[in-house]
Amino acid sequence: MPTGSSKTEQHFAPVILAGGSGTRFWPRSRRKLAKQVLALDGERTMIQQTVERLSPLTEPTDIWVITNELLAELISEQLPEISKEHILSEPAARNTAPACALAAILLEKTAPETVLGIFPSDHVVKDQTRFAEVIRAGVELAAGGSRIVVIGVPPTRPETGYGYIELGASVDSASGVAVRRVKRFTEKPHRALAEEFLASGNYAWNGGIFLWSAKTLVEAIREHCSAMAPLLEEIAAAYGTPEFERVFAEVYPKCENISIDYAVLEPRSARGERGAEIYCLPGDFGWNDLGCWDALHEHASGCKPDEESKPNVVEGDDPLCISIDSCGNYVNAPGKVVALVGVMNLVVVQTKDALLITTRERSQDVGKVVAELKAAGRDDLI
Amino acid sequence: MPTGSSKTEQHFAPVILAGGSGTRFWPRSRRKLAKQVLALDGERTMIQQTVERLSPLTEPTDIWVITNELLAELISEQLPEISKEHILSEPAARNTAPACALAAILLEKTAPETVLGIFPSDHVVKDQTRFAEVIRAGVELAAGGSRIVVIGVPPTRPETGYGYIELGASVDSASGVAVRRVKRFTEKPHRALAEEFLASGNYAWNGGIFLWSAKTLVEAIREHCSAMAPLLEEIAAAYGTPEFERVFAEVYPKCENISIDYAVLEPRSARGERGAEIYCLPGDFGWNDLGCWDALHEHASGCKPDEESKPNVVEGDDPLCISIDSCGNYVNAPGKVVALVGVMNLVVVQTKDALLITTRERSQDVGKVVAELKAAGRDDLI
Repeated sequence: MPTGSSKTEQHFAPVILAGGSGTRFWPRSRRKLAKQVLALDGERTMIQQTVERLSPLTEPTDIWVITNELLAELISEQLPEISKEHILSEPAARNTAPACALAAILLEKTAPETVLGIFPSDHVVKDQTRFAEVIRAGVELAAGGSRIVVIGVPPTRPETGYGYIELGASVDSASGVAVRRVKRFTEKPHRALAEEFLASGNYAWNGGIFLWSAKTLVEAIREHCSAMAPLLEEIAAAYGTPEFERVFAEVYPKCENISIDYAVLEPRSARGERGAEIYCLPGDFGWNDLGCWDALHEHASGCKPDEESKPNVVEGDDPLCISIDSCGNYVNAPGKVVALVGVMNLVVVQTKDALLITTRERSQDVGKVVAELKAAGRDDLI
Repeated sequence: MPTGSSKTEQHFAPVILAGGSGTRFWPRSRRKLAKQVLALDGERTMIQQTVERLSPLTEPTDIWVITNELLAELISEQLPEISKEHILSEPAARNTAPACALAAILLEKTAPETVLGIFPSDHVVKDQTRFAEVIRAGVELAAGGSRIVVIGVPPTRPETGYGYIELGASVDSASGVAVRRVKRFTEKPHRALAEEFLASGNYAWNGGIFLWSAKTLVEAIREHCSAMAPLLEEIAAAYGTPEFERVFAEVYPKCENISIDYAVLEPRSARGERGAEIYCLPGDFGWNDLGCWDALHEHASGCKPDEESKPNVVEGDDPLCISIDSCGNYVNAPGKVVALVGVMNLVVVQTKDALLITTRERSQDVGKVVAELKAAGRDDLI
């Protein structure tokens, strides 16, 4: 179990959630090659970038990864600096609450004051320095109390696919990073509500990053998830013994399938702005969750969502791209020269066995292709 | 030289013109893999289909092919039934007049009454039976006189890329195939004129198929191309001798670069409808010159140019295609499963080294890609 790290004042253990299946980047992403293990942005994979981003804050030996059985081996290869004992394979997908809670219970046994950080494994961040600054401030804030720290990304569009954080009073902060209390969480609002949130200036996107002491999270789980807590205690008790795998496989699937937001943050926020002790730090470090090919185009081209004539983004090995009267296209075609003639805002992605043709606007529907392939029994393609 | 064939009443020698470079089917077509040697439509290549189509009319030993040095070997492999001595490689591209005339001069030396048929190597015909019927009637008409027979395809749209034939008086015909005299040839009219032609009902597209006796063509060349005739005589004199290749290479490039239409048909038609003795037979056998990817989509889908919602045409090895809210696309992606989401009327063609993305409407501009590749020094891709 963890030993003290000098990189933050407090002992800090990041838990990277890497169990997602990421069908929206089909045909590049597959069940065994989910988004987090793909190099969608640069040469390093998303999870490698995530670990790299945390390196100013902690030692790799303090990092935990929770993933699934299809991805564990590849993740272990991609992250040789992470101890194999810290890479846990969920026997069944149970959303984020059981994964976060299990990590907290494991840490709480030996170092209850450890600050636990939950980090998605498949988001991108442009400003690594600012990221480290904000997370460091969050770790300080979460340490030695029952405070919960969340990261709120400044919204740039009325996105209906994200959770929103309603911000409350400002709090004095020694770190120089602005701190607000959290009033409320709202999951995926409808369009009109999202527009209202955006216009009010008082809402942030929930970036899926949370910081709290192991003790605080374990207490919250015991309070809000009374059925789940004893199951996870049983698994944690077997950790490090030859029985672990069997117990994990038998008990974990009994946990409720629920997100940490629904399981802990929302009920806790019901205590009211002051009582909840949930604090929001600004995720103003160029965050993007790369939810679909369109988002990758936006990220890779460096252009804003409302920009008119966007550049083509062509990812491949051949530096030559012939573009005639074409703009705003995203093409991913390793090993090919790409020629565009009179086309706009398309997404074309080619792999060894598949070719996807869609538009930037429709790229969020790519999951439907995976569903149809599944229905057609084409497991070789998903 | 030719011996008598029993397949038509008259001795008939088809000359297949296969020197085209076909950049409009890039990236499938390349300099060394021009349209005529590709299997764009079915399993047989365009030139193999052309030979097959002529088989009810002649023996393969009577067929001649005129091509270029880049394609000769492949054509010889694709057409093992054609004698190697009948496959001529032009030392330089000089359009259709020198090629047709050379064939005529070679044949005229031993069998001046032979009916020479000029056939493009890269067109498709749907109704092979009707094709044979019309060509047989044309051979009869061209035999034993100085008549020139052309095939006029009934026009279906105001195409500005074709030559038009203005039809004159009807002529009695024993063959049952309608015969009209030809008044005039008009190359590539502008749009308004093409619309006028179409509306008048008195014009046909020039299908590039001509029938005449060797003697008639040689006389026409001597009359209208007085500079070219002696050059071709010199080449023909060397045919069958060890000197042939050297003479061909030295002399042929001196010939004027001109089409048979401009060189012979237009000046001859100036004699007037009766004097010219040019006759038109209907090319009503489902002709398509497959000028671009859009034309191939039309041909392969079997739909008419003015049909609204067109089907997708997906050419590849995998029978599965996932199409969500998509129509009218042409996709050529061997070895891949293709998924379409919310896209219409696109053309996407993928080869080992290239990926073309355009629209059906813009597919006629694919030649510009080849020009840009050439300018970029990428001979590996053209």
